[in-house]
Amino acid sequence: MTKSSISTDVAIIGAGPTGLFAAFECSMLKMTCVLIDTLEHVGGQCSALYPEKPIYDIPAHPSITAQALIDSLEKQIEPFSVPRLLSKTVTTLKGEKGNFTLITHKGDEIHTKAVIIAAGAGSFGPNRPPLENIEQFEQAGNIHYYVRYSDQFIGKDIVIAGGGDSAVDWALALKDKANSISLVHRRDRFRAAPESLCRLDAAIAEQKIKKLVPYQLHQLHGEQGSLSHVDVISLDGEVQHLKADHLLAFFGLTTDLGPLQSWGIETNQGRIPVHQATLQTSKEGIYAIGDIAQYPGKLKLILQGFSECAMAAHAAHAVVYPDMALHFEHSTTQGIPGQ
Amino acid sequence: MTKSSISTDVAIIGAGPTGLFAAFECSMLKMTCVLIDTLEHVGGQCSALYPEKPIYDIPAHPSITAQALIDSLEKQIEPFSVPRLLSKTVTTLKGEKGNFTLITHKGDEIHTKAVIIAAGAGSFGPNRPPLENIEQFEQAGNIHYYVRYSDQFIGKDIVIAGGGDSAVDWALALKDKANSISLVHRRDRFRAAPESLCRLDAAIAEQKIKKLVPYQLHQLHGEQGSLSHVDVISLDGEVQHLKADHLLAFFGLTTDLGPLQSWGIETNQGRIPVHQATLQTSKEGIYAIGDIAQYPGKLKLILQGFSECAMAAHAAHAVVYPDMALHFEHSTTQGIPGQ
Repeated sequence: MTKSSISTDVAIIGAGPTGLFAAFECSMLKMTCVLIDTLEHVGGQCSALYPEKPIYDIPAHPSITAQALIDSLEKQIEPFSVPRLLSKTVTTLKGEKGNFTLITHKGDEIHTKAVIIAAGAGSFGPNRPPLENIEQFEQAGNIHYYVRYSDQFIGKDIVIAGGGDSAVDWALALKDKANSISLVHRRDRFRAAPESLCRLDAAIAEQKIKKLVPYQLHQLHGEQGSLSHVDVISLDGEVQHLKADHLLAFFGLTTDLGPLQSWGIETNQGRIPVHQATLQTSKEGIYAIGDIAQYPGKLKLILQGFSECAMAAHAAHAVVYPDMALHFEHSTTQGIPGQ
Repeated sequence: MTKSSISTDVAIIGAGPTGLFAAFECSMLKMTCVLIDTLEHVGGQCSALYPEKPIYDIPAHPSITAQALIDSLEKQIEPFSVPRLLSKTVTTLKGEKGNFTLITHKGDEIHTKAVIIAAGAGSFGPNRPPLENIEQFEQAGNIHYYVRYSDQFIGKDIVIAGGGDSAVDWALALKDKANSISLVHRRDRFRAAPESLCRLDAAIAEQKIKKLVPYQLHQLHGEQGSLSHVDVISLDGEVQHLKADHLLAFFGLTTDLGPLQSWGIETNQGRIPVHQATLQTSKEGIYAIGDIAQYPGKLKLILQGFSECAMAAHAAHAVVYPDMALHFEHSTTQGIPGQ
């Protein structure tokens, strides 16, 4: 990991699906750009949290896994060779429209004319259950807060804790792979898509999933970090001792906007209010797109983030090329290098 | 073609890419809908005018032809079995939010709670050159205003007329298929992507394309509608006699908003101004999306139309289900029937 000094037209903070497509839109408008992300890989939550999860509402992709979506977006920007600064957190942003300097926690300097913030929910991490010695089981790889590859669970005994769609969807996705699945929730109702809840009821009736409600995680057992059992406890103190090779705990994410709150940009409850026509923040030359952006009618949909990429890139174009009117081109009249 | 009477939640006028994806978004929100189009097929201009043309800026599709895009969108709505009224033009729209009646030129009646207009540039047709007897050559299939299938030109002598990207791109696309290509334009500069113009110069240098500028179409020759030659004429009256099996004339489109101008919706220079957060037109319960919609920051990009589908469907939901608050779901928590 070397320290860089980079000059570019547009610095894109966040390399999730929206940041990646923003790089495409900037490149199509002949602006140079750089992608910066706190994670060690591109793809944001899609790659970090649910790479195998199918997404159904990406236009013209009847079903695509989150990781395949990221792979396609990477392929789409490949011709432009956009530089990436990964495992780097932008801590400082100073300067003004046409002349910003960004500094990362590793000391990299990025000199840029415009900034697009595509930081999703900010940096994120799992909510960890407060269990004794959980660190030693985490280190051994038996505790999972998200699932990147499901094949590791084939033939295993699994305890899944949580009441949201992650818990339900993974219980369903693993029911034919695992040896046993115990689904533990401290309430007796799960919050998930109606379709998924129907399938859950069927899997419980078939005894493919054992439902334990209302129970909470109580204690972990095992030798040298190798998990063997998980104890769960009911509200009236009854304990069940569940055989478990792995514990999957889905208690949501903690998110943190982090240093960007000190950049002089207006924020509101963890989001950045923007002008709807340009995606510009309260600071000229700085745009926010994707889940972090806030405006009337905003939906936290990846497909809406894509549209914002195009709008923000067009707005940034006026900053990068202040003297050049943008001759707008239709979808079908654009070419890309080498094609 | 039978006369229908249909009751639905949302009537979608226009079955191009935006209309098709609007059907998806409505269906995902458990609203019934119907697609209506003047054309005899879905896909709008994508299918009618440039099915084989690659599009590069559809997110997560590094390159996709216009027809493949439409095919994917059709597959995406397949689970919902959305009814279609094709070759039908809506002539009358009356009623109000929650209770509209649409009537087609064939007498079909559609009773609907909300209306989404995804009519692109309205109905459209080619600008035809004013040449003597052109009808007889059109009837014989030797005059083309758009290209649906390019294999018909293998080994043929082709005259292409026009100065925009359609003329240039098709000259390039056919240069290795046709026996000869003559490219005729009344000015000496072509308007096309810089990349395409470079390739055009190279193809002219290699004598794969013969450039005739500044020339105009002058006369068609042939027996019984079968084209044999096209005469072109320069500004000072010099005529060239070009061997030609086919004439491809790309002089742009005439478009017409047609009957919708009488529906009491505000229009502005062939577009429909909408509220940016909801895509609602000047009339409550009627939304406009895609190229026909007009608001600050609007770009005529298919990908932006997709985003508008989601916003308009959410707005329409409040009309269709006035008493139900929409529990908004993320991209990754939605399920579709049968999955």
